[in-house]
Amino acid sequence: MAKKLPKRSEDYSKWYNELVVRAGLAENSGVRGMMVIKPYGYAIWEKMQAQLDKMFKETGHQNAYFPLLIPMSYFAKEAQHVEGFAKEAAVVTHYRLRTTADGKGIEVDPAAKLEEPLIIRPTSETIIWDTYRRWIQSYRDLPVLVNQWANVMRWEMRTRLFLRTAEFLWQEGHTAHETKDEAVREAEQMIDVYAEFARDYMAMPVIRGVKTPTERFAGAEETYTIEALMQDGKALQSGTSHFLGQNFAKAFDVKYLSREGKLEYVWATSWGVSTRLMGALVMTHSDDNGLVLPPKLAPIQVVIIPIFRKAEQLEQISAKAREIMDKLRAKGISVKYDDSDNYKPGWKFNEYELKGVPVRIAIGPRDLENGTVEVARRDTLEKFVIPSEGIDLYVENLLDKIQNNLYERALAYRNEHITSVDSFEEFKDVLENKGGFVLAHWDGTAETEAKIKELTKATIRCIPLDFDTSEEGKDILTGKPSKRRVLFAKAY
Amino acid sequence: MAKKLPKRSEDYSKWYNELVVRAGLAENSGVRGMMVIKPYGYAIWEKMQAQLDKMFKETGHQNAYFPLLIPMSYFAKEAQHVEGFAKEAAVVTHYRLRTTADGKGIEVDPAAKLEEPLIIRPTSETIIWDTYRRWIQSYRDLPVLVNQWANVMRWEMRTRLFLRTAEFLWQEGHTAHETKDEAVREAEQMIDVYAEFARDYMAMPVIRGVKTPTERFAGAEETYTIEALMQDGKALQSGTSHFLGQNFAKAFDVKYLSREGKLEYVWATSWGVSTRLMGALVMTHSDDNGLVLPPKLAPIQVVIIPIFRKAEQLEQISAKAREIMDKLRAKGISVKYDDSDNYKPGWKFNEYELKGVPVRIAIGPRDLENGTVEVARRDTLEKFVIPSEGIDLYVENLLDKIQNNLYERALAYRNEHITSVDSFEEFKDVLENKGGFVLAHWDGTAETEAKIKELTKATIRCIPLDFDTSEEGKDILTGKPSKRRVLFAKAY
Repeated sequence: MAKKLPKRSEDYSKWYNELVVRAGLAENSGVRGMMVIKPYGYAIWEKMQAQLDKMFKETGHQNAYFPLLIPMSYFAKEAQHVEGFAKEAAVVTHYRLRTTADGKGIEVDPAAKLEEPLIIRPTSETIIWDTYRRWIQSYRDLPVLVNQWANVMRWEMRTRLFLRTAEFLWQEGHTAHETKDEAVREAEQMIDVYAEFARDYMAMPVIRGVKTPTERFAGAEETYTIEALMQDGKALQSGTSHFLGQNFAKAFDVKYLSREGKLEYVWATSWGVSTRLMGALVMTHSDDNGLVLPPKLAPIQVVIIPIFRKAEQLEQISAKAREIMDKLRAKGISVKYDDSDNYKPGWKFNEYELKGVPVRIAIGPRDLENGTVEVARRDTLEKFVIPSEGIDLYVENLLDKIQNNLYERALAYRNEHITSVDSFEEFKDVLENKGGFVLAHWDGTAETEAKIKELTKATIRCIPLDFDTSEEGKDILTGKPSKRRVLFAKAY
Repeated sequence: MAKKLPKRSEDYSKWYNELVVRAGLAENSGVRGMMVIKPYGYAIWEKMQAQLDKMFKETGHQNAYFPLLIPMSYFAKEAQHVEGFAKEAAVVTHYRLRTTADGKGIEVDPAAKLEEPLIIRPTSETIIWDTYRRWIQSYRDLPVLVNQWANVMRWEMRTRLFLRTAEFLWQEGHTAHETKDEAVREAEQMIDVYAEFARDYMAMPVIRGVKTPTERFAGAEETYTIEALMQDGKALQSGTSHFLGQNFAKAFDVKYLSREGKLEYVWATSWGVSTRLMGALVMTHSDDNGLVLPPKLAPIQVVIIPIFRKAEQLEQISAKAREIMDKLRAKGISVKYDDSDNYKPGWKFNEYELKGVPVRIAIGPRDLENGTVEVARRDTLEKFVIPSEGIDLYVENLLDKIQNNLYERALAYRNEHITSVDSFEEFKDVLENKGGFVLAHWDGTAETEAKIKELTKATIRCIPLDFDTSEEGKDILTGKPSKRRVLFAKAY
């Protein structure tokens, strides 16, 4: 690591962008708005995927795969959906290229124009419900509990690595049910799964809630969300789960023969999280030295670095390091030994700090004499000299401690940044000077919601489900009566 | 299962298509040439992925992700590559839709035309080598050993589920090396990995070999292949690994500072297998009753079916079934208990035969009395009544036996269908009446290769590496001298 990262306090946005690139998570590609997810970043995403996939399967879901391209006409079938989704999309209009007349280049072959343009999926409700029509005839075919891991594309003009890119990776669950109740329970179950994943694996506290009609998914009757708070005081929507009612069943004519022998429309949900979680992970824990990764998602949990002058010392240290590695690996801990000779230990310390490796073990000649090692925690940057005997148990416990500490630290920050306000002046002041979530009264109209957004850039992140905000009060802007506070914030 | 499958002997192609759909592997979508991979099919693909991914990581590779869309101009940079790949491709020309003038529909917004068309990746060499230019400066950055799991698109006019679809899923490894030798070794290592996977997991014998220049990957200097034989006597190319020389490094200007301090072009490989392996798996083992799955890739390895008349009997049988299930699961065997009451046991027997479940256990009231169960093997359709005591060990061994038997059976069939011929008449006769691989002399020219293809539809599958075919002889068509036999076949 040649130069230092920008400081968060000086330029948060620049800090984030440089960190993502320099830690080896992702970079911009030669194609506008599309990123390359680099091996180190992808390794974290794989860990997220593996855990989420396990949780989906434990709740009865199976994976499947649906086409990347969706005929344009499908989007027109669900009225709200087309408004929300089909507009900023990548459109395939031709299926062949040809050599140019001069024989030197290639060009689109005008003769190979598709009769109907195809859209690269921005989300797959339409193609999936077109498929479910064939899969579902009777109540015996229900529920359908299917998830897809896929790439999707939304033509974003202003992009940021992980947070907003034209192409991103995600999973999208699409389920079909006999009854409204069952579908609502499914949508709620999946937002709970996301909240549990965020808490227990990402060490990221989230607030569960429902979106206002304005902020709902296009085509949903209810959108559940988990909202996290980043270190700059902005909220980040980290996962959503939608109760879709019978909207898509009606649009794609998906009916089933009920237990009572009647033809009924099917009830639906959809739910998803994306590589946006990578951005959330980075911005929840990292510091001015670089990434801070929770041990459960760290591709490398422990790095061992030898400190030596002579080759003979290295040999002895390496023997010790291998002994420690074996013990750690036997406990399922992932460990890397960096004995490369082209960089000095100090450079390596910085490099693995930048990469967020939770625990660093340094071993020098004096450690060998004393039967000790030096252990450094990435989360607190503390160092301890401890006996190398029993190091495996020590590290195992330390990883748990770090995982918990990261959560507690983020939770404390988040809790300090939930502010109740009762006037619009206060509201603006908190947004401006403190940041974070603001609990305020709202009169329940889309007009007021829009006006507040226009005036402050803050949006209603959700009507919280995790704590009771019901209470008589007056809308901070209009003074009209309100029955509960809702959660505002500026957001990514 | 209402009606029987078509017989292989009567209409192999129809048998395949119906089997894939009715076993729940895949189906055509509403989008031309694009398939839906259904949950049962996807579960098999996931098992393939998991094992391959493990083997890739064991050989030092990491995963990453590169953009779906590639600028048209990138394809023009490597002359052979553009000929082979960029032509039948899905082309994105616009990035926005708009509401039609009547407000009722949507249409492509002509104002949102891209300056340069983007191609949906048919393969990713171009975008990846454009990226590697940024990643590689010095020999210390080498080797780069990266793999990507992704969807790709090739605009095929005549499609068949899994075997040839416009969109398919695959993995593509792309590696960069200091030396030619190292790159060649990598390409060879990966074809070995594929051959090992085919043999040990798919129970599918393959012949390793190199492609003739005509059949090489566009941009490769050497293409290694594994060729399998389907039950209808046609070959199926199941995986390829390419030594790309310095072609892509030169096209994308990827140089590194060597150990000697000189700027050199990087050496490259790429290698891939796709959902085509699903088609290969189906066609290698299955029979007129349905799928036959090798235990190592079967989503359900054992199904238990109760045989009963009265509810009281079902209760007792279920208790026994749960006991057996627990024992099997403790051995890591996946087992399903089908006590659904809407179908009779006979229907269920057929259904799980259709789905290729390797082992079926039936338990009836008499079994309870006698302390037995009935075990049926999917591969041989044999049934055995055996003591329920020790059933877990029995099934564990049986699954191994089935895995081995499937391989041995496929190997025997394959070996019976490698025929050496010395005249063109014989060549045509074998292709026409026996099928399979034909070992014949070839004069080494592209002209003869093309002529033979034109006359017989047979192509040179490979110059085998698994056995020595060198021997003086005469080309079967031209009579010109030849130094070794090559492997011909009609192919998918």
